[in-house]
Amino acid sequence: MDKMIGKRSVQFEVPPCIIGAASVAGEKEGAGKFGKYFDIVEEDPLFGGKTWEEAESKMQHMAADIAIRNAGLESEDIRYIVAGDLLGQLIATSFGIMNLNIPMFGVYGACSTMGESMAIGSMLVEGGFAEYIVAMTSSHFASAEKQFRFPLAYGNQRPYSATWTVTGSGAVVIGRGDGKWKRKETDYVCIRGITTGVITDYGIKDSMNMGACMAPAACDCILNNFKDFGVEPDYYDKIITGDLGTIGQRILKDMLLGYGYDISKQHMDCGTEIYYNEEQDTHAGGSGCGCSAITLTGYILKKMRKHAWRRVLFVPTGALLSTVSFNEGNSVPGIAHGVMLECV
Amino acid sequence: MDKMIGKRSVQFEVPPCIIGAASVAGEKEGAGKFGKYFDIVEEDPLFGGKTWEEAESKMQHMAADIAIRNAGLESEDIRYIVAGDLLGQLIATSFGIMNLNIPMFGVYGACSTMGESMAIGSMLVEGGFAEYIVAMTSSHFASAEKQFRFPLAYGNQRPYSATWTVTGSGAVVIGRGDGKWKRKETDYVCIRGITTGVITDYGIKDSMNMGACMAPAACDCILNNFKDFGVEPDYYDKIITGDLGTIGQRILKDMLLGYGYDISKQHMDCGTEIYYNEEQDTHAGGSGCGCSAITLTGYILKKMRKHAWRRVLFVPTGALLSTVSFNEGNSVPGIAHGVMLECV
Repeated sequence: MDKMIGKRSVQFEVPPCIIGAASVAGEKEGAGKFGKYFDIVEEDPLFGGKTWEEAESKMQHMAADIAIRNAGLESEDIRYIVAGDLLGQLIATSFGIMNLNIPMFGVYGACSTMGESMAIGSMLVEGGFAEYIVAMTSSHFASAEKQFRFPLAYGNQRPYSATWTVTGSGAVVIGRGDGKWKRKETDYVCIRGITTGVITDYGIKDSMNMGACMAPAACDCILNNFKDFGVEPDYYDKIITGDLGTIGQRILKDMLLGYGYDISKQHMDCGTEIYYNEEQDTHAGGSGCGCSAITLTGYILKKMRKHAWRRVLFVPTGALLSTVSFNEGNSVPGIAHGVMLECV
Repeated sequence: MDKMIGKRSVQFEVPPCIIGAASVAGEKEGAGKFGKYFDIVEEDPLFGGKTWEEAESKMQHMAADIAIRNAGLESEDIRYIVAGDLLGQLIATSFGIMNLNIPMFGVYGACSTMGESMAIGSMLVEGGFAEYIVAMTSSHFASAEKQFRFPLAYGNQRPYSATWTVTGSGAVVIGRGDGKWKRKETDYVCIRGITTGVITDYGIKDSMNMGACMAPAACDCILNNFKDFGVEPDYYDKIITGDLGTIGQRILKDMLLGYGYDISKQHMDCGTEIYYNEEQDTHAGGSGCGCSAITLTGYILKKMRKHAWRRVLFVPTGALLSTVSFNEGNSVPGIAHGVMLECV
């Protein structure tokens, strides 16, 4: 069987399995819709650290630890860690995983990082280069605001199109589909295939409307997934995008309708769902690498293990926003990485 | 055959080949020791762009274009591009490769990025997930100074331990070892294996002495390569580190001597060699993702194709420097990615 399918997708011969997962979330996320599903909800926004960046590092360390233990493994069993975050030079990741002493591939896909790290990680496992890998990412509201927008103390007004960066870190351990890992009672979710995104730029220049920047990338990735695998939307029980928010979600649905696909029955957006937007004052919803990551590891995987959903197309979306390019008058391009999840 | 060898290495069954390469360099690099080997030496530091970041993007676009043509391919033939740069949110890469419309994995390994992208890329090819991939990176003196240190116009003094960020972009096209690509008269270089680094932190806090931050990571990567493959330094004709510079290079040799390995006969450091340090006032040497990338694609591969060297361990080194973590009083951790190059 050819593993390459269509123009942009991979179909695994022996689909790798998600054998461990962890979700570490902040207090606001704990009070949101998926609060009860997270492994850890920490009330201290600094996670016991001295800076926001250190807080984010601590989240990643916790998430990796829990996911590895959840898989019944030790950190020495992990061949590679594929991880990244939103901060310049991936400092949350570098400082977070340093003590684990695991060979590392740093990745950056903005808020699509969970999809990117799972895509690379599952190929490394299925290609025979690793028995187990950890794919991980994080974001923190305060470190992201500092990196991309305004200092918190400045108290700027946020337009209704703005999203709220999720404080959270999600990690999964991926193992070979025919591996020797200890199978537990619960059912497993495997990665059937992936569809990798291209950089998509519709010229949006509004950093307070990231949903509009990312919707075309999500549309492109989903379309190519349908085409490459020859499937229709109803092949999936759910098509779950990362953090388009309420506005980006509408754009995505409209765009796909233009191509003849109606995904309104299957579609869910982690960003739109993760908070109670009205009560929690989160405007267009949640965003950040952590948004899709903890929704996956906290909520989606649990739903799938209970067979509420058997086939899910998970499409984390990233807006490649940089303050430097943005201040130089450039647009904010987007990218999306599709991961096909299936109950074993 | 097991592809996993030792604790941190991969040994390819069918070693992927480097079937195309490109080196785009700035004027200062063109006047350096390897000047005559580069495909393009551009006198305009802005590369016809309006900003330093745009200049760097243009370099990446040029490098990708030339490498793909050099391989006798079109951009549609490339399954993935694995690339990154030093700038926050990888803007040089995102904007540089956008028009190529190739599925992209963004990576960040600081100045070790060429090693990281080649490692991931060669696994994707050998694992059967791609016929051809492009691995690429870049750095630009002016965009890097702006990102990490002082505005150029400030004219700060540079200590003798400081290195000079190379303006350049290097790209390789990697194809299957048994692929159907058109073989040319010249000999080819294949990737026999890889050794992936862990994050190494000896507590160095001097951003003007990056060599000292990276030397322990290089040492760790080289040691593990020797151990995993059961070889001694003289297995290689050359062991080539990325950008340790004159100071880091001394530390590396001393550290390895402490472990019983003398690499002084084989060792070369791209950073130490790329400029005429005295005449060009580059102090401890060159650095940046572009340093090892253009030395590889301009100089090393050409030496290997002429069989001057048959076996090279290429070890780009990265200092995970961030202005944020640095200003918060943190150390600068390092990472190194080893790639085993061999004449076919």
